[in-house]
Amino acid sequence: MTTEVTTVGDEAEPAADEGARADLSRLSLNTATTKHWTLREAVDGAVRAGLSSIGPWRDRVQEVGVPEAARIIADAGLRVSSLCRGGFLTTDDDAAARAALDDNRRAIVEAATLGTHELVMVVGGLPAASGPGGPALPYPARSGAGVRVQGADDPARDLVAARQRVADRIGELAPFAAGHGVRLVLEPLHPIFAADRAVISTIGQALDLAEPFPSDVVGVVVDTYHVWWDPDLQRQIARAGAAGRIAGYQVCDWILPLAADPLLSRGHVGDGYVDFASITRWVRDAGYTGDVEVEIFHEDVWSAPGDETLATMAERYVRHVLPHL
Amino acid sequence: MTTEVTTVGDEAEPAADEGARADLSRLSLNTATTKHWTLREAVDGAVRAGLSSIGPWRDRVQEVGVPEAARIIADAGLRVSSLCRGGFLTTDDDAAARAALDDNRRAIVEAATLGTHELVMVVGGLPAASGPGGPALPYPARSGAGVRVQGADDPARDLVAARQRVADRIGELAPFAAGHGVRLVLEPLHPIFAADRAVISTIGQALDLAEPFPSDVVGVVVDTYHVWWDPDLQRQIARAGAAGRIAGYQVCDWILPLAADPLLSRGHVGDGYVDFASITRWVRDAGYTGDVEVEIFHEDVWSAPGDETLATMAERYVRHVLPHL
Repeated sequence: MTTEVTTVGDEAEPAADEGARADLSRLSLNTATTKHWTLREAVDGAVRAGLSSIGPWRDRVQEVGVPEAARIIADAGLRVSSLCRGGFLTTDDDAAARAALDDNRRAIVEAATLGTHELVMVVGGLPAASGPGGPALPYPARSGAGVRVQGADDPARDLVAARQRVADRIGELAPFAAGHGVRLVLEPLHPIFAADRAVISTIGQALDLAEPFPSDVVGVVVDTYHVWWDPDLQRQIARAGAAGRIAGYQVCDWILPLAADPLLSRGHVGDGYVDFASITRWVRDAGYTGDVEVEIFHEDVWSAPGDETLATMAERYVRHVLPHL
Repeated sequence: MTTEVTTVGDEAEPAADEGARADLSRLSLNTATTKHWTLREAVDGAVRAGLSSIGPWRDRVQEVGVPEAARIIADAGLRVSSLCRGGFLTTDDDAAARAALDDNRRAIVEAATLGTHELVMVVGGLPAASGPGGPALPYPARSGAGVRVQGADDPARDLVAARQRVADRIGELAPFAAGHGVRLVLEPLHPIFAADRAVISTIGQALDLAEPFPSDVVGVVVDTYHVWWDPDLQRQIARAGAAGRIAGYQVCDWILPLAADPLLSRGHVGDGYVDFASITRWVRDAGYTGDVEVEIFHEDVWSAPGDETLATMAERYVRHVLPHL
């Protein structure tokens, strides 16, 4: 699908496609970007903007019920690029672990019902920093200077053990996912979130965890916000591509200063410090031909009218990503 | 040197050395921890607390003049564990690069004059995010959402090129450092600072950069705040030890929520999420026998009386670090 995109901005650097009918056929709206829209509003907005796919979050899907959500999206002629999200598998409490596995099985069924192959997994943080089921969005402060003094060999701070629990539980979920034609897509999160949201911080680490499983059962997603800084990024993206494990490419920017809540500190592509030209070429050269999701958590983006957000998304995609894809 | 340290806190988990005369002979005060103390005040405070070494910042050294600073420290019978800091080598401006190299040569001379072998290097961020000479502390906001739209292939956002400039300039400085008996100690910074302060984010990356040089000319420092999250940490610490390149071990904690300025978001050991037992054992097992510096940037720590800060430092060191060292 093509649509008219008017690029604006720096006159000295016209975008490659300025004035042309831009190809948005691989651009997908992650519904977190238009936080205040219902699923139907997001679907309608994506269609108006000329997109072909959408990446819904489970809360917006559950709001209308999964079968109805599937119908809304299919009726609009959109693909589902991925479902966000499963995960939060790091708890060291047995009951909480069983609940987390059950919830992930439900997420797998939801993904299959929506007709997407890709279930994004945010694996969870240290037991010391995250409750069962994971922190809410935005997450609550669970510690502060001077609140607590840890003992030596504290299991709640044992990163190595938390990562092993992720590996074990991915192993438990993999057959169920495979049986439903769904891939568990491990998402490395920026190390700023290593304590409270994800003990997976790099593509390389995610690939090591994925290795025991078939490539259509466990994959990885490349999210520029989370991995742009990684000195090994080019090599690990190539490795992911060679293994057939790149399940998604998500784009948004690292901006400074950070927002007070760093979870909500993502910028539109081009507003920050990420080198989208290089990373996009690495993803392309790794053989990725799937959708490019825009997933932005930021109060300013959320308070903008949704159609405006989508127009900015499309314009930035055409300027910074599409020429290298 | 030993001194009386009274450990307080959780009665159910007595510290290993509770009530004993603790061995603080490897504990060093980085002067950034007692920000408001002059060098002489910091030296006197360190002596009162029973420490044997100090890690001064250049501003506090220059305040009194380098020879006088050397005399103050030597007269007090303290070692200099390291000098903070050189670096900020990433600029793509030729004049700024020459100025940065000159400043680093001065820092090398200062380190030699102070009698320390270790000059800590914070290598600098992207040209887009850092001025010549590096950002001030605390650094200014140089960008924000929507301020700027980048072009494709923007050199100011080219991480790979910025890292190459670091490699080249370390190469330029190495003979001068070697001639003065000073080691350039590369400090990987947490990826939260990859845009504006350091394009080196991991021990492994620092070791790759160090590899062309002798181990007594280019080394690395392990700072728990910066590297605790790294999935490859144990292996890279072992690699650093095997290569004879561990030039320092700095300890402070990762606390949540982050301070509004994440640069000032470090906590006393034990207040956050770092697994000091594991990391300290990895550093020990890698053969490190040098000083352990405490370097904390946090307004609450800075506003506490210096002697109180040193007492907390010592207590936490004895509880969380010393048993594993």
